[in-house]
Amino acid sequence: MFLRNCWYVAGWSHHFSSGRPVARAMLGEPIVLYRKDDGGIAALEDRCCHRLAPLSKGRVEGGDLRCMYHGLKFAPSGACVEIPGQTIVPPRARVRAYPAVEQDCWVWLWMGDPALADVALIPRALKHDDPDWWMQTGELVYEANYQLINDNLLDLAHLSYVHENTLGRNSMSWAESRPTVSPIPRGLRIARWVVNNPGPRYLTMPDGVSHVDMWASYDYMVPGIFLLRTRSYPVGMAAARGMRAPDPDAEPLTTTTTSQAVTPIDERHTIYYYSGCLPRRLASEEDSRQQLALFERAFAEDNVIIEAQQRVIARTPQPRMLWIRADQALNQFRRLLDELMADEAPEAAANTVPALQGAAG
Amino acid sequence: MFLRNCWYVAGWSHHFSSGRPVARAMLGEPIVLYRKDDGGIAALEDRCCHRLAPLSKGRVEGGDLRCMYHGLKFAPSGACVEIPGQTIVPPRARVRAYPAVEQDCWVWLWMGDPALADVALIPRALKHDDPDWWMQTGELVYEANYQLINDNLLDLAHLSYVHENTLGRNSMSWAESRPTVSPIPRGLRIARWVVNNPGPRYLTMPDGVSHVDMWASYDYMVPGIFLLRTRSYPVGMAAARGMRAPDPDAEPLTTTTTSQAVTPIDERHTIYYYSGCLPRRLASEEDSRQQLALFERAFAEDNVIIEAQQRVIARTPQPRMLWIRADQALNQFRRLLDELMADEAPEAAANTVPALQGAAG
Amino acid sequence: MFLRNCWYVAGWSHHFSSGRPVARAMLGEPIVLYRKDDGGIAALEDRCCHRLAPLSKGRVEGGDLRCMYHGLKFAPSGACVEIPGQTIVPPRARVRAYPAVEQDCWVWLWMGDPALADVALIPRALKHDDPDWWMQTGELVYEANYQLINDNLLDLAHLSYVHENTLGRNSMSWAESRPTVSPIPRGLRIARWVVNNPGPRYLTMPDGVSHVDMWASYDYMVPGIFLLRTRSYPVGMAAARGMRAPDPDAEPLTTTTTSQAVTPIDERHTIYYYSGCLPRRLASEEDSRQQLALFERAFAEDNVIIEAQQRVIARTPQPRMLWIRADQALNQFRRLLDELMADEAPEAAANTVPALQGAAG
Repeated sequence: MFLRNCWYVAGWSHHFSSGRPVARAMLGEPIVLYRKDDGGIAALEDRCCHRLAPLSKGRVEGGDLRCMYHGLKFAPSGACVEIPGQTIVPPRARVRAYPAVEQDCWVWLWMGDPALADVALIPRALKHDDPDWWMQTGELVYEANYQLINDNLLDLAHLSYVHENTLGRNSMSWAESRPTVSPIPRGLRIARWVVNNPGPRYLTMPDGVSHVDMWASYDYMVPGIFLLRTRSYPVGMAAARGMRAPDPDAEPLTTTTTSQAVTPIDERHTIYYYSGCLPRRLASEEDSRQQLALFERAFAEDNVIIEAQQRVIARTPQPRMLWIRADQALNQFRRLLDELMADEAPEAAANTVPALQGAAG
Repeated sequence: MFLRNCWYVAGWSHHFSSGRPVARAMLGEPIVLYRKDDGGIAALEDRCCHRLAPLSKGRVEGGDLRCMYHGLKFAPSGACVEIPGQTIVPPRARVRAYPAVEQDCWVWLWMGDPALADVALIPRALKHDDPDWWMQTGELVYEANYQLINDNLLDLAHLSYVHENTLGRNSMSWAESRPTVSPIPRGLRIARWVVNNPGPRYLTMPDGVSHVDMWASYDYMVPGIFLLRTRSYPVGMAAARGMRAPDPDAEPLTTTTTSQAVTPIDERHTIYYYSGCLPRRLASEEDSRQQLALFERAFAEDNVIIEAQQRVIARTPQPRMLWIRADQALNQFRRLLDELMADEAPEAAANTVPALQGAAG
Repeated sequence: MFLRNCWYVAGWSHHFSSGRPVARAMLGEPIVLYRKDDGGIAALEDRCCHRLAPLSKGRVEGGDLRCMYHGLKFAPSGACVEIPGQTIVPPRARVRAYPAVEQDCWVWLWMGDPALADVALIPRALKHDDPDWWMQTGELVYEANYQLINDNLLDLAHLSYVHENTLGRNSMSWAESRPTVSPIPRGLRIARWVVNNPGPRYLTMPDGVSHVDMWASYDYMVPGIFLLRTRSYPVGMAAARGMRAPDPDAEPLTTTTTSQAVTPIDERHTIYYYSGCLPRRLASEEDSRQQLALFERAFAEDNVIIEAQQRVIARTPQPRMLWIRADQALNQFRRLLDELMADEAPEAAANTVPALQGAAG
């Protein structure tokens, strides 16, 4: 079950070069995207209305896309504009078209009612394509339901276990720090101090500074957009602030961002797009590449545990999860997503992921 | 859903050598074929009646086949004739036998009621094993329903798109030529002029002749037998004949044949047998091999688009196709096949392929 | 369908080294086994009660096992003993634990009601870990239901066909010898003379002895434990005994044992553990290795035919088997297993393997 009236990331801008249609399954639907001659992106149902061949094996002709099985040609609106061997093209000859927007190096598709597609609802990725920042990008396919990946990103306590030797840095800091969770439009803000930790890797630190207090705050928005900014300060800052957010006027020692997007391919497969951004004044391009390589080792660790979790769930009749205190944010987010889906499809009763039973002590 | 009272190609004669049983799934049924000591072909259910082991892992003994799990021996009639360790063989110890005929280098099996198996219903392949002709052969397995392959062969307009760079020769001739379609017993005859095209490759053309008018006529018969003959004439012949068939007394410049057979393995897999035949007076053996290599590049193109089409259909709930004018022959053939199947099994309501909605302009 | 109140082999002792959890699916259930610091074996449900991640990706800590997704820790009893970030562990935080016993180099799990787990019900493997005997071990995974492997082991007549060139030694001796079948607790005893056969390979024979009469007797016990002992005597002994069992006081020329265990992974997959044991006074260690290599060639032959049989059954609607005289022991064993399963779950009506129809002549 998916939220439909929502923008989903369909890929990085650089995935779509002129003249080469790209097949993407999203929310169980076959979609073809292509860059038109005018540079814009079109997105159509990847299924010719004639004999159901995929249009992604077709040919871009100006702004249009021709099916290369029997030659029907489609405009970006989805309307068929040519049928070889006949002069009249009936109005029913059309495929579905998806509103597409390119913003912050991501291509976004609106998967619901086109009349409701509001560009203002697209979350803004952090520091993508900013000349003062390095940006590295990547993507990873999961054989798992998207909600399991949302769950993972909504509880960073797992860094101390899954990423013990990578992001977790052999420390219990993440498992022990309790974040504050607050609602924002279509999402949650999750923030915490990680106290007296080694300074961030890949960034030049001031002389003599080895450890920092780090304020890590991210917005998590539907359908699964993760926008994290870290700021580090001299040790003692967290206590001095009484564990509240840092003073916005206090200049941090370092700052980093990462933006990530979870897009369901279908109920059992998901694609995950991610960036890693570092300020050029504190890091070299090589530092930035090294940071992404670390991310990718860590994401491979997530991939292993989440795909294993998915396989266990799939073979468990009536799976039930146990709610613990660390699950606060992910429970709130599931509730938000369930409410939005219920608004769209009140008749669709149950979610596809296991029910929870409370066990917070 | 399959037509049962019909002859299906089970392989080339050279697939069946003495003493080596061959497993073949046809119409979803496991079948074992073997060449008996007398040179004839026997075809049995590939499933021992004892403990359901496949007889294709068995041993040919004269005209019989012994299961190599526990040693039961079967005659070509399907009757068990020996059970090790007991003297009486009960009549219920038997497997199904299929009428088998070897003709024109193909082995044909009758998949329906053996009492109705009429050898006269076997279509005659063209120029197979003719000493004046070269014959090359091959086969290809599709992960697709057989009807999608029938559809493909019944609308050669796709040559201009799918085979743009191989058989289509970068020309719209095939897409633009309208064939005449006429009923024949258990099939259709589909014929057209392809006008002012380059002469057929791999054949010696008369001096000074580069382009020809080609008469391409094929019979397409149940279950999926494609028998094509081409004849080429000097440019102008098509117009001189008023686009009607060439005068049978007019000697063509060149002629070629190809015979092809579509055999369902099951609802989602199909095997496709094909020959390419050239007259020895106009072509060398190497020409003939080159022609088959071209065919195989083209059939790989069909394979890609049809398997992709099948995957789209498989994940489309209630798939519907749109009927266009180019679909005339394939619609007629589907109707014929549906009628024959309805005669056999009136209770079986629906076909397994998408329904059509008309859109011919 | 499986018998639950029964000991199943979960692996060889050497499969379980300290600190490395091992995932095993048995009877369709995911299980994790690990060797505790005290050397004992613990076996838990391989599914954390929190978010269903597999515990087999966890970390052994003393006698306990910690989930490496979010850090919950479990005792061998299945009870959760630590939840990071909270002080109270609710009693519902637990996973299933399986009684585990290590005996004769095998680890045995009780898959049913723990209150009924009686160590006395574990069959004793023959000559495992006996200082006077060589023991070689192995295991093989089948894509087949466990009952088909039981069937195979309960009718050694197949040695003359499946193992014609390996264990069967190109002889009809196995197919022609009729065993005596007698009930024993939770199983059958199956014994026969194989008369005037070449002496056992890999064993030193007395000077001048090439052929022997061999008494081959095995117990076959639920769920699928095969315990075979062979004893060979001078040719003529079988006749002298009137085909009855040899005099227990008569010293055999040679003796060998093999113990084998069939453990269902799920309804369609099975693991098969086997040993080959030879007395050190008649064989070198290299002889013993050679014997196991022969076994493994033969078991590969079984694997091919049984997996093929399973595939045939899987695609046969309402498969039925035909009962012949050679099936006596396997029919008795199926009946025994069916009765034991019916005792456990009277409501579960039908077995998962094909029904039989009698055809013994």
